[in-house]
Amino acid sequence: MNYTDASIAEIDAAIAAAKAAFPIYRRISDAKRAEFLQAISREIMAIGDDLIQTACTESHLPEARITGERGRATGQIQAFADFISNPAWKKEIHDPAQPDRTPLPKPDLFQTQIPLGPVAVFGASNFPLAFSVAGGDTISALAAGCPVIFKAHPAHPKTGNLVGGAISKAVTSCGLPQGVFSLIHGASHAVGSHLVQHPDIQAVGFTGSYRGGKALYDLAVRRPHPIPVYAEMGSVNPVVLLSDKIAENPAALAAGLAGSVCMGVGQFCTNPGLLILQKKDAGFLDLLAAELDKLPLGTFLTPGISDAYAAGVSNLAQHSKKLTSRDLPSPALFVAEAATINRVVLEEVFGPCTVAILVEDKAEMISFIESLEGQLTGTIHGTKAEISEELVDALLQKVGRLLFNGFPTGVEVSGAMVHGGPFPATTDSRSTSVGTQAIYRFVRMVCLQNRL
Amino acid sequence: MNYTDASIAEIDAAIAAAKAAFPIYRRISDAKRAEFLQAISREIMAIGDDLIQTACTESHLPEARITGERGRATGQIQAFADFISNPAWKKEIHDPAQPDRTPLPKPDLFQTQIPLGPVAVFGASNFPLAFSVAGGDTISALAAGCPVIFKAHPAHPKTGNLVGGAISKAVTSCGLPQGVFSLIHGASHAVGSHLVQHPDIQAVGFTGSYRGGKALYDLAVRRPHPIPVYAEMGSVNPVVLLSDKIAENPAALAAGLAGSVCMGVGQFCTNPGLLILQKKDAGFLDLLAAELDKLPLGTFLTPGISDAYAAGVSNLAQHSKKLTSRDLPSPALFVAEAATINRVVLEEVFGPCTVAILVEDKAEMISFIESLEGQLTGTIHGTKAEISEELVDALLQKVGRLLFNGFPTGVEVSGAMVHGGPFPATTDSRSTSVGTQAIYRFVRMVCLQNRL
Repeated sequence: MNYTDASIAEIDAAIAAAKAAFPIYRRISDAKRAEFLQAISREIMAIGDDLIQTACTESHLPEARITGERGRATGQIQAFADFISNPAWKKEIHDPAQPDRTPLPKPDLFQTQIPLGPVAVFGASNFPLAFSVAGGDTISALAAGCPVIFKAHPAHPKTGNLVGGAISKAVTSCGLPQGVFSLIHGASHAVGSHLVQHPDIQAVGFTGSYRGGKALYDLAVRRPHPIPVYAEMGSVNPVVLLSDKIAENPAALAAGLAGSVCMGVGQFCTNPGLLILQKKDAGFLDLLAAELDKLPLGTFLTPGISDAYAAGVSNLAQHSKKLTSRDLPSPALFVAEAATINRVVLEEVFGPCTVAILVEDKAEMISFIESLEGQLTGTIHGTKAEISEELVDALLQKVGRLLFNGFPTGVEVSGAMVHGGPFPATTDSRSTSVGTQAIYRFVRMVCLQNRL
Repeated sequence: MNYTDASIAEIDAAIAAAKAAFPIYRRISDAKRAEFLQAISREIMAIGDDLIQTACTESHLPEARITGERGRATGQIQAFADFISNPAWKKEIHDPAQPDRTPLPKPDLFQTQIPLGPVAVFGASNFPLAFSVAGGDTISALAAGCPVIFKAHPAHPKTGNLVGGAISKAVTSCGLPQGVFSLIHGASHAVGSHLVQHPDIQAVGFTGSYRGGKALYDLAVRRPHPIPVYAEMGSVNPVVLLSDKIAENPAALAAGLAGSVCMGVGQFCTNPGLLILQKKDAGFLDLLAAELDKLPLGTFLTPGISDAYAAGVSNLAQHSKKLTSRDLPSPALFVAEAATINRVVLEEVFGPCTVAILVEDKAEMISFIESLEGQLTGTIHGTKAEISEELVDALLQKVGRLLFNGFPTGVEVSGAMVHGGPFPATTDSRSTSVGTQAIYRFVRMVCLQNRL
């Protein structure tokens, strides 16, 4: 095995295999597909410690985190296997015929879901297992009945090959055509471009940067036959801090927030990068700065991310005031006023930093929220009495998930989860990339009229 | 009232009013929205005969058809009012907290749907009531909680104003802000372009030509913040005719097909423009040609459609063989062989004509179907014994609705209906523009975590 970029011929061969596998794969039963998913899970576990050590080495993430992430990945596979084992997942609707209706009889109508076709998936740098080769995008597409061509992330190619090998073993042991899953490497944009523009690719899943996701979206919508792109591109995840809640236990709130900012070296899509609070509560920021000053910077996933963080915080320091005391780069808190803000401070800096925006009052808080871009999450820390319907409504317009008195890092794999949100958080606000509802990105409804 | 193109200032004012109305409209109850829809229906009926006569005059469609279409439009409004009166429409999912779960407690998660925001709707020429000002796109968006700005079709501006006036009366009588609904005119593409590119428009509904729908799609996906476009652009709606079924009652089949081809002067999105049958069954086409030769051409909706039909059938005559005996333009049947086809004959000609494609055998039938573009509908006429799973599967990949032993014209408004299909039939194969599921085009899911 090697990690050199796939050639055009290799990409085309993978897509041709996926296309050939699709008519077979789409017609096997849900039960058989569920068995296949469970076989993938078993093969991943069978790699054993080699997978953990390889992922730790490539990602610089600690062993406990990687072990936990493997559990998340296999738990996610089980969740999808369970989900498609219940026929309700197809949301079938049956409107019986009314042959005696006047002036015209009503036909028998039956609605169900069918898979879209071969899907291209691009994995994330920051979750080498749970948002990667056998992550949520791959598993939800396979659960839907779509073959997958996975473009491995260059930050962890060995981990990718190990997991890709596990999926291929499951394909074989389940007697499926090999084209159901292919792994290709490609540090060059040319590989992804060719993949997304190929006429036999029918949808795209992506987790990563705005630049990467938007580039794939632009290619896909300009195809002669456009296809859907589900790109999760991250956001700054605003956290609103209200006065009474801050006053309840400021030390615990500061410690919780600092932990959420620094978790995984701040390399989470749902990292809280923006705080919104009233000027009268600005004293809380000193507590938070002190908490952040206690935490280590940690080792980034890649030198590229490390460099981007250093540049990002240095840029923030030019357009806002640094409240943490250590030299940059370090975990950092900045502050600016909503009235005089340079909007450059609202752009995501991937890493353990956050920017606090001070507003005069609740009216300015609402109008500032209304000025924000789309976000994966929004959070309100407040007592029941001080959280107005207007505030909830305003923040809800901007987010896929709204949290009350919690921290946005940590995305539960669950039926009710929405890991999505309005552009530019994602390219399709009507979808989620985490949780079982993610399967509906890769199917479309069809109606059978008077089926025999 | 006049029908001159809306100025940029007028379009901007309508959008500003919609934006201002949205925070109010999205927060009223489903029950109140259902009342509003029913008020629209009552106001449309209150226009009385003036509406019928105006629509007949502008569309050249007969009174019985327009009266029936009004019934379809008000029936559709009632269907959406009923649909949102059942809270199940929001597909709420509640995953309760598991505070004792290890290693981490599970939060309480609640998923529901919220409206996207102001929607621009472009009406169709061929249904001045049911796919126009108070048609399925408008009503499904209003039902979802989205304000609508409707661009009236220049083929029936007076009808548009009458129905728009009815909606505005309902807005007033229900005490809603006027911006919930606006009607603008615009024969020029500039009006539609400005509307679709405005940053406060959040989705687009369209029924019409490929050229029109694709142009709006291209504008929408190139916006700084792309938005979904639901364009239903029509198709040729292939009809597969199998030997035993033809033999059962060829005369009835020919009469039924001819009626479906010519219904409404062939001006239906689901008009059967393509027949697929084996060479050995080609004798059936003489029967069909004879039936078509009995039917009048009729009056087209607009001179433009009439001219396009004349040009379209003249082009078909150059690339296939005409089997009907009358001079063109007339209801017409053409025939070509799959093996030697010029694919220009597979392009939609809007009007009462159809092209029969002869295949050698069932294998060539499948491969020809696999070569087709996406379609709104596909139909199989066959006995249970002769319809293979492979044929059903192949045709299903290409369509939104698959009919057995029926005719595709006539789209039931029903929960199970899918009036959609893969590109280029529509720009979003995961949606329907007819039936209650159409509401989901205009909402997105959100998750509330540990809501108070």
